[in-house]
Amino acid sequence: MRACLWRRCNFRSHNFTRPFSISPATHERVDVARLLSQLTEADGVDVYGWVRSLRRQKKVAFVAIGDGSTLESVQAVLKPEDAAQLSTGAAVRLTGSWQASKGSKQSHELQVTQVAILGANDAEHNPLQPKYQTPEYLRTIPHLRPRIPANALLLRLRSQVIASLTHFFNQQGFVQTHTPIITSSDCEGAGEVFTICSNAAKEPEQCEKPGGQAQVEHFFRTPKYLTVSAQLHLEALAQAVEKVWTLSPTFRAERSDTPRHLSEFYMLEAELCFTNDLSDVMAVVENMLVAVASDLLSSHTGAELLKAREASQAEHESTTDSLTAADLKARWTGLASGAWPRITYAHAITLLQTAAADSSATFAFEPSYETGLQAEHERWLAAHVGEGKGPVFVTDYPAVQKPFYMSPSSASESNGGKEYNTAACFDLLVPELCELAGGSLREHRGDELRKAMEAKGVEGSGLEWYQDLRKYGSVPHGGFGLGFDRLICYLSGVGNVRDVVAFPRWVGRCEC
Amino acid sequence: MRACLWRRCNFRSHNFTRPFSISPATHERVDVARLLSQLTEADGVDVYGWVRSLRRQKKVAFVAIGDGSTLESVQAVLKPEDAAQLSTGAAVRLTGSWQASKGSKQSHELQVTQVAILGANDAEHNPLQPKYQTPEYLRTIPHLRPRIPANALLLRLRSQVIASLTHFFNQQGFVQTHTPIITSSDCEGAGEVFTICSNAAKEPEQCEKPGGQAQVEHFFRTPKYLTVSAQLHLEALAQAVEKVWTLSPTFRAERSDTPRHLSEFYMLEAELCFTNDLSDVMAVVENMLVAVASDLLSSHTGAELLKAREASQAEHESTTDSLTAADLKARWTGLASGAWPRITYAHAITLLQTAAADSSATFAFEPSYETGLQAEHERWLAAHVGEGKGPVFVTDYPAVQKPFYMSPSSASESNGGKEYNTAACFDLLVPELCELAGGSLREHRGDELRKAMEAKGVEGSGLEWYQDLRKYGSVPHGGFGLGFDRLICYLSGVGNVRDVVAFPRWVGRCEC
Repeated sequence: MRACLWRRCNFRSHNFTRPFSISPATHERVDVARLLSQLTEADGVDVYGWVRSLRRQKKVAFVAIGDGSTLESVQAVLKPEDAAQLSTGAAVRLTGSWQASKGSKQSHELQVTQVAILGANDAEHNPLQPKYQTPEYLRTIPHLRPRIPANALLLRLRSQVIASLTHFFNQQGFVQTHTPIITSSDCEGAGEVFTICSNAAKEPEQCEKPGGQAQVEHFFRTPKYLTVSAQLHLEALAQAVEKVWTLSPTFRAERSDTPRHLSEFYMLEAELCFTNDLSDVMAVVENMLVAVASDLLSSHTGAELLKAREASQAEHESTTDSLTAADLKARWTGLASGAWPRITYAHAITLLQTAAADSSATFAFEPSYETGLQAEHERWLAAHVGEGKGPVFVTDYPAVQKPFYMSPSSASESNGGKEYNTAACFDLLVPELCELAGGSLREHRGDELRKAMEAKGVEGSGLEWYQDLRKYGSVPHGGFGLGFDRLICYLSGVGNVRDVVAFPRWVGRCEC
Repeated sequence: MRACLWRRCNFRSHNFTRPFSISPATHERVDVARLLSQLTEADGVDVYGWVRSLRRQKKVAFVAIGDGSTLESVQAVLKPEDAAQLSTGAAVRLTGSWQASKGSKQSHELQVTQVAILGANDAEHNPLQPKYQTPEYLRTIPHLRPRIPANALLLRLRSQVIASLTHFFNQQGFVQTHTPIITSSDCEGAGEVFTICSNAAKEPEQCEKPGGQAQVEHFFRTPKYLTVSAQLHLEALAQAVEKVWTLSPTFRAERSDTPRHLSEFYMLEAELCFTNDLSDVMAVVENMLVAVASDLLSSHTGAELLKAREASQAEHESTTDSLTAADLKARWTGLASGAWPRITYAHAITLLQTAAADSSATFAFEPSYETGLQAEHERWLAAHVGEGKGPVFVTDYPAVQKPFYMSPSSASESNGGKEYNTAACFDLLVPELCELAGGSLREHRGDELRKAMEAKGVEGSGLEWYQDLRKYGSVPHGGFGLGFDRLICYLSGVGNVRDVVAFPRWVGRCEC
């Protein structure tokens, strides 16, 4: 009867998997998320999880059990002597009856008849203590940090967003690809690179500085680097199957120490052939984020993120983080609504200059066409264009500010009486976070690409293969890259990218 | 009328995306796969693609156009003068009418009224010539290789398998994670590692040999390496959300020059908590591959792979590759059927010894319990256990052959009168390819893990964090890793892993 009851249940939101057997358990296993959605009573229930909190009274002990399947925990009611060996963090199997609760905080609770400690907790030395611990401290123990329910939720968010993206691109006919991590070029104009070498070399190897003289035996014969972007390789693959994407790790050896930069991070990149209209590329970005945000709005993970944000605000009133659950939901709605404003760089400068002139904004750097957008300018644009309700595309930046591979815009810009060459490119700015994605049409004409490479000083840098792509049936195409970890920040409301990446790496820091 | 006709069509197998505009085209755009499924006539059709082949006659020219959406091409009928500038590889837009064909090879063809060359082809210098070119040669031009339709098909296969896996794990409640690429440990027992360094260091940096004396400034303060496996980090994440997986790049600096090894390759790895039964781990592997193979069997990509194999066999009768389309389909059916045999290592040795004794098999290495399974032994087992129809799990290898993190089996083995400690582990062997995946229960007890690390000489190697996982609520768990590129080989029938990876890297070779 007992086991049958569980088998008859039909929880559409969760999938039954075959039960695990940890002897001597004999009952059906159920995860916490599923158990909490079960509103009829049942005997013979096994719950596996970790002790989240513990409250001992004279005649009874209350133990909250979580397993990472939800932010919530199950209230388990134990005899005080059965709870004697428990502490926050211990792993247990609790067996008992699922019954209507006498307390008002939960509809049901587990009346425990049997306790098995699967993994004891060294409570005294546990670096995770059941109290508030700062994000800075938690970053020193990334191997334990995800055990905090709010951090486990971030893992589930990432997984859900990946699933949404995979579904979206699959539906749109994009082919998911694996672009290389080890690459030959160190000069795609995206910053400093990591060099790799092999300890297995017969002779000691040295990593050369570019232009260095050392005669060394390289594992791959010549120096190789960790990729800074999949774009160039994606362009090659796009010419085979028209539309491609990848979500893969990229690397920058920059000594930045900011909440927005990591040395190792995931980039979502896509390329599509047969377009000479930047709008086509922006449409992919927009439709993609609409899909991700819509999925989130209607998901259990979304609901939990809002709940977590409310709890976090209530708990730490003194934190500087002022983002409310309503603000967070507004972000998702802004994304899900689509149809974001698109303004040119020249127009953006004009808006900034007007705001500065009428004193509606104060900038440390005077906005000017030549000097480019500073972070404070991007912030203002993201907040004011489209009334801060959602992202804004800024297009057609001066070509001189952009890398060699971008196509020119169809018309040059006139500003302050001068003519400027602009690139057919965009940045996607979102309120608060600012730059989330960037893209462009790619220079698909061989001669023009060669000239651009010469002008930017990157010719002869192991990119002959990239120039080849323009010789044998080149096609007009474009693409974009999106900082995936930043997207997770934006969707979760977590302010620092180091707190949404499981094992963050930045200058001087690489734990585990 | 023209455009409307296309809008009314309801091709369920393909998704409509918004049309691209390459001026001066004004018509609805359609990809080749979709066009070929359209069996009613229509005017005003734009086809974008690359010339696959070209046949000029006096009054007419026949041009085959492909775009990577399918192995097939559209037959386009042109005036000879319109085809004068075309060659195999050129990118074009052809505008015309989709009409019933007079030829017998296709039901419909495109009667072209307008030709636009989007990207000319330098036919003379094109490294891809319209003739048979060896796989060895094609590996020197990975940036162009996927333009060959059979290689584009491999890209689509990879994408489809990723989508199947994402769906499977999502359904099973596994959380997809991004484990780090740059790691601190160089000694997980999985072989030689690559070391990374930064060219951005203020002082020249050297990559140290382990134990080296050089005083250098490291970007991350201490030497860091490219990961050889996500497993250890996955175990940390599993203790947060119970069930996790990742599909991410891994690296080995081994000087192997074989059809089965790359220096950079994708591994699919998963870990699941709350199990002390190896069968639970094997069930995940089995169910996962059943799902992937079932999806493939019922897919367009699957049908195309069979067609490609037939064509390839017909074309190159002299090749040593004897795998037929029927053989390939039998592989998928073997996977999709599930319920694969599970035998212990000890039993495997007995089977091998019996086969050697009765001369039904001849081995260069005599099978013995102590020396381990040689490649020839694995091949024999994969071919004979389960009658070669599908994979076989071999379990409980001698602990001495396995890494420090594996749990002991519940009982030791007795062989030839001696007692052996065995590990609760398995290898999955598939016919012809041999080892595809391997997994185990993990040693979750702190003391036992410490002893195993001492015994294997890996204590104090930056793995203190991994030992931490056993101190604060450790749980019984297990997991596996599967060579993703090898899986693509097995599913596609391609014999060399270098030919299924877009930009393969191995010792001495890293093109592009």
